[in-house]
Amino acid sequence: MRMVDIISKKRYGGQLSREEIDFFIRGYTMGTIPDYQASALAMAICFQGMDYREMADLTIAMVKSGETIDLSRINGVKVDKHSTGGVGDTTTLVLAPLVASLGIPVAKMSGRGLGYTGGTIDKLESIEGFHAEITENKFIQLVNDNKIAVMGQAGNLTPADKKLYALRDVTATVESIPLIASSIMSKKIAAGADAIVLDVKAGSGAFMKNDEDAEKLARAMVRIGNRLGRNSMAVISDMSQPLGFAVGNSLEVKEAVDTLKGKGPHDLEELVLTLGSHMVLLAGKADNTDEAREKLVESIKSGRALEKFKSFVKNQGGDSSIVDSPEKLPQAKYKIPVPAERDGVVSHISAGGIGISTMLLGAGRSTKEDSIDPSVGVVLRKKIGDRVKKGDELLMIYSNCRDVDGIAGRIRRDISIDSSAEKPELIHKIITK
Amino acid sequence: MRMVDIISKKRYGGQLSREEIDFFIRGYTMGTIPDYQASALAMAICFQGMDYREMADLTIAMVKSGETIDLSRINGVKVDKHSTGGVGDTTTLVLAPLVASLGIPVAKMSGRGLGYTGGTIDKLESIEGFHAEITENKFIQLVNDNKIAVMGQAGNLTPADKKLYALRDVTATVESIPLIASSIMSKKIAAGADAIVLDVKAGSGAFMKNDEDAEKLARAMVRIGNRLGRNSMAVISDMSQPLGFAVGNSLEVKEAVDTLKGKGPHDLEELVLTLGSHMVLLAGKADNTDEAREKLVESIKSGRALEKFKSFVKNQGGDSSIVDSPEKLPQAKYKIPVPAERDGVVSHISAGGIGISTMLLGAGRSTKEDSIDPSVGVVLRKKIGDRVKKGDELLMIYSNCRDVDGIAGRIRRDISIDSSAEKPELIHKIITK
Repeated sequence: MRMVDIISKKRYGGQLSREEIDFFIRGYTMGTIPDYQASALAMAICFQGMDYREMADLTIAMVKSGETIDLSRINGVKVDKHSTGGVGDTTTLVLAPLVASLGIPVAKMSGRGLGYTGGTIDKLESIEGFHAEITENKFIQLVNDNKIAVMGQAGNLTPADKKLYALRDVTATVESIPLIASSIMSKKIAAGADAIVLDVKAGSGAFMKNDEDAEKLARAMVRIGNRLGRNSMAVISDMSQPLGFAVGNSLEVKEAVDTLKGKGPHDLEELVLTLGSHMVLLAGKADNTDEAREKLVESIKSGRALEKFKSFVKNQGGDSSIVDSPEKLPQAKYKIPVPAERDGVVSHISAGGIGISTMLLGAGRSTKEDSIDPSVGVVLRKKIGDRVKKGDELLMIYSNCRDVDGIAGRIRRDISIDSSAEKPELIHKIITK
Repeated sequence: MRMVDIISKKRYGGQLSREEIDFFIRGYTMGTIPDYQASALAMAICFQGMDYREMADLTIAMVKSGETIDLSRINGVKVDKHSTGGVGDTTTLVLAPLVASLGIPVAKMSGRGLGYTGGTIDKLESIEGFHAEITENKFIQLVNDNKIAVMGQAGNLTPADKKLYALRDVTATVESIPLIASSIMSKKIAAGADAIVLDVKAGSGAFMKNDEDAEKLARAMVRIGNRLGRNSMAVISDMSQPLGFAVGNSLEVKEAVDTLKGKGPHDLEELVLTLGSHMVLLAGKADNTDEAREKLVESIKSGRALEKFKSFVKNQGGDSSIVDSPEKLPQAKYKIPVPAERDGVVSHISAGGIGISTMLLGAGRSTKEDSIDPSVGVVLRKKIGDRVKKGDELLMIYSNCRDVDGIAGRIRRDISIDSSAEKPELIHKIITK
């Protein structure tokens, strides 16, 4: 088998066999297939695509390229959730303890963030003492005992994906449904998921700018998962504006706690309940999503979900008293309101723009080496469709620098006020096959 | 400027600016742009193409990547001819002395062959003593004195093209009109051509299998040449069967000499006169192609073309007596006829198949390190449209091995005999702009 023939086959629109895909991934991982052939193939895939069988073969080949996490010692169906990433996406912090509170194991591998705000672990680390660097044994024990634990990336998972992703980043081949889908699914499967719930964001603040692309990606991932024996489904959710109100690490932790108390932003709560009910269904703990949703709502009402969050934080060394005393979370020195400059209705909030502004405040990383300021960010007061009067607070900037004029100016341009506007639908579509 | 942005621009169908093309070629030549980015760009070009302006910019960027041959010390318009390569293509051996015999300077840089048969230099070297390893000064002096010389590739011409071609070869990005056209034209221009006549072969034995692709390539090269101030034109000629009768190095030299004597195969003579008349026109030695053609025919009739061949061979150390005594050329030990197995009309001769058979006999190279046997090859007795009777000689195999049953079997399958067939048109099209 020769790599040049494999590239040529894909260039002319052929379907690669499982053997050809294995040959490529094995050789590329070992270094016998050079970067310049891998990048040519990646570009050919960008133009010619892959069918679902090829995507599944690529996914499992990348899983097999490295170590995998064995979660078989955890009782029950391990349902993982993955979000394609947006601005102010606090979902995991609410969803994980909420689902665990129904007795469903949540064994969450997570990473640090690159971009707008931190990743789940960065956010959790804004709680004093919390740490995610635990051994695999400890991780499994925590999940078996308390149904929930979060661990930083451990072991050499999917080295082929890591290498290929780094190459795609510098060869303009990132944007490709088959390559994105197989990359995400390989990481979830290597991390031991039995079933997978996918939150695919669509809109200006997301990687997928429109519903059509988001649906293609969602369908690709669901098909890959199902072909590989992992029950999978996807929710396409709105990212035309930030989710919830808070964007920034400790600000999002506080918002998550509020939501677990039943006092969170409506859209965040709704997304959590939608994703959560499918997780409960896939875990076999409800017969339908309505029943699952009722159980989740009841768990919030009864306080069990919040208790689960507390015990989870405590188990991993964190100060769980922040739940009752959120002022113990890192606080920014300055709070600067940004007022509306005219009467009207908020018609547009650039999620991407708000994301960049919070990164400039110090809430995100532009390179892997950057450190994060957990206290800074923004909290929206108004969202699309909300009526405002001139002088009303549009949002609050949390900063450790007094002078935020530049950032406030940016943000003002990111929020439009018009004569009328409709609230966007939160859930665009559910993809189950 | 970042290479990843240039790749992305082309991936999404944008036109690269001259600055972007220069940045790529300069960086790639110097090694600051890695192979994996160059191959991704090449693949994007395969899918998105380039307009004529981009092709011209790419061509001149590759010319500037290395040394160039300065032919300004040669008086007159230096017209170069290039063939995209076929089977049994003896054209240059006839055309160069024929055009030179009209007082037009023919300063021919040539290479060794890879594939079916040798290149022009390999063929000339089947004449005892002939050598093409001459200095640039000697080369220029020979052309000024005698109007004709052939030199092997000298100096570091178009290193960017060499590097890029080697990369394309292993990344399935060879087949691309913009990349092929700019590669060919960069070499011609770096070799000092003032004007360029292109022979683009179309048919089963050529790189371009059909007229549509051949025309696209021809037009691309002509436009590039004209944009860069080199008057250029192209002839699309038939390669559905080998050109002339002979395929093999010394066999082709003999056929060239026959043609210069006015006793060559009709199709070879016709192609030589067509290409030659355009060369004469571009050199400014005739007002139209009819006049140019008359001059060429007259030069053959008078024997001046043959005399020019003799003096050319002698000037470069070769034994010019082979012109009158062709038996002094290397002779194969065995001549094995292949007879027709039925009555009918020759309907198909696979030029590619015949090419491979001559390579198997030893007339060509499959890798650069292979040596060539100048004496072997095949000579066709019949061509498409010729009527044959069972037992008639279809062709003669010239071999140094007695057992050629395998090759004879191959060749028999490459020649079809049917109830009727038309002779293919030799000149498919003339492209002047």
